[in-house]
Amino acid sequence: MLVVQKFGGSSVADAKRIFNVAQIITEKYSEGNSVIVVVSAQGDTTDELIEKAKEINPAASRREMDMLLSSGEQISISLLAMAIEKLGFPVVSLLGWQAGYHTNSTHTTARIKRIERERIKTELDKNKIVIIAGFQGINRFGDITTLGRGGSDTSAVAVAAAMHADVCQLYTDVEGVFTADPRKIKNAQKLPEITYDEMLELATLGAQVLNNRSVEMAKKYNVEIEVLSSLNQSSGTMVREVTKMEKMLIKSVAKDDNVARVMIVGIPDRPGMAFQIFSRIAKAHINVDIILQSVGRDNTKDITFTVSADKGEDAVTALKDYIELIGGKSISYDTNVAKISIVGAGMETHEGVAARMFEALGDAGINIHMISTSEIKVSVLIDASEADRAVSMVHSAFFDDLSIK
Amino acid sequence: MLVVQKFGGSSVADAKRIFNVAQIITEKYSEGNSVIVVVSAQGDTTDELIEKAKEINPAASRREMDMLLSSGEQISISLLAMAIEKLGFPVVSLLGWQAGYHTNSTHTTARIKRIERERIKTELDKNKIVIIAGFQGINRFGDITTLGRGGSDTSAVAVAAAMHADVCQLYTDVEGVFTADPRKIKNAQKLPEITYDEMLELATLGAQVLNNRSVEMAKKYNVEIEVLSSLNQSSGTMVREVTKMEKMLIKSVAKDDNVARVMIVGIPDRPGMAFQIFSRIAKAHINVDIILQSVGRDNTKDITFTVSADKGEDAVTALKDYIELIGGKSISYDTNVAKISIVGAGMETHEGVAARMFEALGDAGINIHMISTSEIKVSVLIDASEADRAVSMVHSAFFDDLSIK
Repeated sequence: MLVVQKFGGSSVADAKRIFNVAQIITEKYSEGNSVIVVVSAQGDTTDELIEKAKEINPAASRREMDMLLSSGEQISISLLAMAIEKLGFPVVSLLGWQAGYHTNSTHTTARIKRIERERIKTELDKNKIVIIAGFQGINRFGDITTLGRGGSDTSAVAVAAAMHADVCQLYTDVEGVFTADPRKIKNAQKLPEITYDEMLELATLGAQVLNNRSVEMAKKYNVEIEVLSSLNQSSGTMVREVTKMEKMLIKSVAKDDNVARVMIVGIPDRPGMAFQIFSRIAKAHINVDIILQSVGRDNTKDITFTVSADKGEDAVTALKDYIELIGGKSISYDTNVAKISIVGAGMETHEGVAARMFEALGDAGINIHMISTSEIKVSVLIDASEADRAVSMVHSAFFDDLSIK
Repeated sequence: MLVVQKFGGSSVADAKRIFNVAQIITEKYSEGNSVIVVVSAQGDTTDELIEKAKEINPAASRREMDMLLSSGEQISISLLAMAIEKLGFPVVSLLGWQAGYHTNSTHTTARIKRIERERIKTELDKNKIVIIAGFQGINRFGDITTLGRGGSDTSAVAVAAAMHADVCQLYTDVEGVFTADPRKIKNAQKLPEITYDEMLELATLGAQVLNNRSVEMAKKYNVEIEVLSSLNQSSGTMVREVTKMEKMLIKSVAKDDNVARVMIVGIPDRPGMAFQIFSRIAKAHINVDIILQSVGRDNTKDITFTVSADKGEDAVTALKDYIELIGGKSISYDTNVAKISIVGAGMETHEGVAARMFEALGDAGINIHMISTSEIKVSVLIDASEADRAVSMVHSAFFDDLSIK
């Protein structure tokens, strides 16, 4: 088997953890597998480098930022390689450009264009464990680029796709994907598998197990991902296209409290209003999530929508003048709200799922402000103060009477 | 003019010093020059990285050490580039491999084979200040190499040679080359110029202004070096081939107290003894400096030689069994000695120079243990306790009645 393993910054934060990771890698290698490893910068290295740059020039060019930041993985890959040498295994560390990661030229948020496989192949043919610096590549001018936050996940999935790896193991600080946040919900259960689309919905819902770009890429190239923890030996959650009939309708309950609700009251009930409002919001680079428009009354209507918590004020600023101009009554926002979502691919064929969620919330006396649905997701907006209780109630409604392995 | 400037690690140790260096660079650029800058890693970065490596694997491969260590300059070049951007000048930072430094594959002490000039030329043509990571290059396998201690000086001289620069300014923590150590000798004077050979002798004599490899390379490619300080505006010392007749016979008095004297007493006075002894020393990778062999007496002789202070014990260990085997009387070493040297290209044609040195020492009542001479140098070994006084007396004998600019 050809296995790609990816370890995040906290997994290689110090010498002890580096040896723990080296142990995981060499065990996989000793079982007879070819192993490619992608590593992030140690612990807080990237943040420390950003601080250094800010001290000198807060408006530094992105090209030089990439030059600076990419040094972080250079340190972690060489230290990890040294640990593997210490354990007596053949190993080589490669920087992004050495491993053949070619990207476009959008410094600090570059996209991988292709991976030239020659060097990696040569090293695998020599039976070496190949350690690759995640998060970085090279553009057509020979300049170093970085992939932005979560870039190492993308680096791992990309090399798994390019090398046709059998599996891409992404080691995180959680054991896998759960039916709810295991730190909050006592009987949250680890899912043995989940589809790419379900994973994507979960990621956008605040359950930040994996970076979305990496899941999208895995889906596109059909790379099997396993999400697991570097701190224990349990098997994790497989992310892959599942063809068999779903036994379970919903996979997970997620909470997102990084939400602001923007309320526009009393604007004229005539065509084009929504377009005017949301084109202004788009121009301000604000992503809108749920939108609710009230039924017209007295020739006026209300529009409510949600954005991420830090964009609430921006949204009001972007719209205030326009709302005044058209004679709207008021615009305001609040962040005392949370979004609770259930995700599952089987949902669309089972109309009772949403009703079961609403019933659980109703029984608990929790008021629903907004509702949004997609093919594999139902989200509701509620008061933030009731969010944890809501997750618990919804989780019970779906999982307490099911047995999941 | 095309100017190469090199700044060491202490010159870029923090944000304030980085801006000081940025100021020096942009002034040179503003005068209408093309400027290439070579930079070392910040302050103690390299030592800190070595510590990190030792914690994980004291026997790490040299290839991985190079991967680790070369990250240091990556940080310093990008930060310096950001400072220059802040001052409003066009700039680009380049790693060793990006700047075209091709080396052999002797990791941690690689030699530069050639510099491919394309990228540097392209950037200079765009009127950019080019900041290059010193100390590092790439071998024919695409692996990163480093040049060893003092490597950044070599990087600077090499690029000055390759690009046919008009001058290579090496910024150090001293103002130039002096007639003696200015911290010790009050009236030590800065030399306006010195030849390559004189500089080489001074470097091996413990006056560590410049790395020897860089001076050798400068001599080979006829690169004019200026040694100067980044902390003030004074002009420094030019290192170049001087064709005019030397006005002054000797250039500088140097002290080296990193010396051990090894004494072998009472070995058989027969042929081959010296060969046997020094081949064993060579096998132990110990460099020998001065050698003194006593005239034979009672069919035995004594051999005394000097090595660097930390090798005294190694030398005794390497020889003890052999000396016992051949019936030698004793072998021992002591480090309470120092080497005082005078250097100057005009010396060989003026036989009175050595005598004048010996006279000065004799007048001061300082006993000479050993003497060694070359075409442009006279060295004597004396008690360490008298070293500073000896430098002072010798310096007076040569420089007090001369007027040097």
